[in-house]
Amino acid sequence: MSNSSFKIISKNKHSKARAGVINTPHGDIETPIFVPVGTQATVKAVPPRDLREMGTEVVLANTYHLHLRPGEELIKKMGGLSKFMSWNGPTMTDSGGFQVFSLGVGKEGGGVKFLREDALSIKYKASSANEPRPRLNKITEEGVTFQSHIDGSTHKITPESSIEIQEKIGADLIVAFDDLESPKYDYEKTKESLDLTNRWELRSKKTHKNKSQLLYGVTHGGQFKDLRENSAKFVDENFDAIALGGAHLSKKNLYDVVDRTTDIVSEGKPRHLLGIGEVDDIFEGVGRGIDTFDCVIPTRIARTGFFFISPPLGNMKNRFRTDIDKTMYTNDSKPLDPNCNCYTCRNFTRAYIHHLFRARELLSYSLLSVHNVYFLVNLTKEIRKSILDDSFSKTKKKWLGV
Amino acid sequence: MSNSSFKIISKNKHSKARAGVINTPHGDIETPIFVPVGTQATVKAVPPRDLREMGTEVVLANTYHLHLRPGEELIKKMGGLSKFMSWNGPTMTDSGGFQVFSLGVGKEGGGVKFLREDALSIKYKASSANEPRPRLNKITEEGVTFQSHIDGSTHKITPESSIEIQEKIGADLIVAFDDLESPKYDYEKTKESLDLTNRWELRSKKTHKNKSQLLYGVTHGGQFKDLRENSAKFVDENFDAIALGGAHLSKKNLYDVVDRTTDIVSEGKPRHLLGIGEVDDIFEGVGRGIDTFDCVIPTRIARTGFFFISPPLGNMKNRFRTDIDKTMYTNDSKPLDPNCNCYTCRNFTRAYIHHLFRARELLSYSLLSVHNVYFLVNLTKEIRKSILDDSFSKTKKKWLGV
Repeated sequence: MSNSSFKIISKNKHSKARAGVINTPHGDIETPIFVPVGTQATVKAVPPRDLREMGTEVVLANTYHLHLRPGEELIKKMGGLSKFMSWNGPTMTDSGGFQVFSLGVGKEGGGVKFLREDALSIKYKASSANEPRPRLNKITEEGVTFQSHIDGSTHKITPESSIEIQEKIGADLIVAFDDLESPKYDYEKTKESLDLTNRWELRSKKTHKNKSQLLYGVTHGGQFKDLRENSAKFVDENFDAIALGGAHLSKKNLYDVVDRTTDIVSEGKPRHLLGIGEVDDIFEGVGRGIDTFDCVIPTRIARTGFFFISPPLGNMKNRFRTDIDKTMYTNDSKPLDPNCNCYTCRNFTRAYIHHLFRARELLSYSLLSVHNVYFLVNLTKEIRKSILDDSFSKTKKKWLGV
Repeated sequence: MSNSSFKIISKNKHSKARAGVINTPHGDIETPIFVPVGTQATVKAVPPRDLREMGTEVVLANTYHLHLRPGEELIKKMGGLSKFMSWNGPTMTDSGGFQVFSLGVGKEGGGVKFLREDALSIKYKASSANEPRPRLNKITEEGVTFQSHIDGSTHKITPESSIEIQEKIGADLIVAFDDLESPKYDYEKTKESLDLTNRWELRSKKTHKNKSQLLYGVTHGGQFKDLRENSAKFVDENFDAIALGGAHLSKKNLYDVVDRTTDIVSEGKPRHLLGIGEVDDIFEGVGRGIDTFDCVIPTRIARTGFFFISPPLGNMKNRFRTDIDKTMYTNDSKPLDPNCNCYTCRNFTRAYIHHLFRARELLSYSLLSVHNVYFLVNLTKEIRKSILDDSFSKTKKKWLGV
């Protein structure tokens, strides 16, 4: 058992939503909560002071990126991830698998979310537009060999090394090393991938020594009901925390998988939905028993000028967002989102941020990122409150219209 | 007379240094003080919250840039520059002349400071590396016609329009429209330019109606002693505030010009040294009676990785700066400047900022900019304190070694 623990505080009567707390050595994490992604030990363009001020509970960083730069030895020497980035609160790392060999795609634009394209026809979405994609060399029983996206040097990550790297990085919540199936895989190939994942996860578990870190097992199985069920059972049997991963063909498929998985796994274990963070996905996920979500969406769209808006301006049709570059914002003295209480919305007009964005001023990316991260963090805080006072369905209806 | 007023609080016994206060409608400005430059209504990568926290007294924005984008009408509609950028403290604008037709060069690297290259062989240093330079069309008695660096559209600025634009932008301290001599000009050409400046400054003064704005006249005259003296007398006779401008051949020439000018102009008027901001220039300027300085150096060098360091690390030889990109900082757990108390130095290590900078993370530019601006603002605050407790010479010696 880990030193971290999870406790359910309140359960919703009309859904599987629950409010809880994950205790970690760096502090408590109140759930449900959106987890901002700080790929390279920084939530892009958002100083840690702002993360604290907006009520962020936990930050996720990417093991793949940190392993290559600046390296886990340096982070360990500097007191671990949380101290290194001067966040000083709870942190999470993924296993590195997602970036290393799936080079998966989180399609922001559409309703369909592929967490992995076929390994041979990869459409990589790098963390910045200019970042070259890593090249995959080889997947074997032992692990994955790949070339760095930074300098082309060859690296290998195995279940053992993933855990060792994550121990040195020192996050409170870590993830077992897994293989990612493509949504294009047939049953046989998906099962092969899942079997490899299971063997890798057991090796991850065996390597995991530092019990101040809570190790999440990851579920897979693609679009196949029995594989998904077997995976959920396997992870629940072997791990104290459940991460939901793998490929989904559609939002409906994603929600079905979440529903089936949370029916199977133990109620008392925390559940993390990897790489998901649209407003509707968060409501649907929470309603099906998810506790935490991570996604790069808020900071990534901020750097292209998009910002989140709440109802009634924001809705399912505009996907709760609009574009500060629009000419209509040129002389708009309102804040980005009139309902928002973030630093950006308390202090700046759309007109000013439109000007900064057009002038390509760095402050525009920062102000938009602060707003977008605040928006999702506080959406999940509002959801938590609605679970505690039994108004979850009402809150969901207010946001999604259904 | 303007509604703004200047009062000398204390005078140094061994130099012409003085500590004072400029009262403005947006608050008091304690001098001597370094004025951070926010070219496009933002001090690049520094949120106004940080400006306040670090003790910034006044921010300077560029009339040329704001006129072209977003335009003075919008800024006026949004409540004026200070409110538009959510700074809410005192602000200053230049006349636009410097950018419009001199496209002057503030050479950062060397001891020689050219404020203007020959108009026909201009080496423009834009506010960002990618910014195309404006093209000069014509200088006539009426004013200057030029093409926008943004879209090539043709614009004209005259002394009258410069003041009208500055009135709409609404800064507390504004500057008369002037012609900039080249340091390559001979006596006749320099005199011709100065005569034009004088006529333009008188027209600026005549247009200036809003007495809540303090109008600075600008001295010129290049390297020629009698022209400089005549210019100082002219500006002192006609204006309540003195800005020192024009071309300088060397630091020695600059200091001589400052010395002669402050000997001539009335003691009770505030004196601003345009575009100057090296550590030694600030000490030498204050010692010769300068009250305020503006310069883009702290934010510009920050975006290329350079940061200021104080003695004993910083000295005249390394020009009080070093480069975060250096490999020696990879695992350095010290703050940027061990003597600094800025947000960056209180919270982050060189190792972390080195990592961010190598990874091209936006936060690196922000953290370095915050430190560099804080550094010069607080250097001038330390200098002010040393004038008040009569330790200016000692402080100067601590920093410059002489």
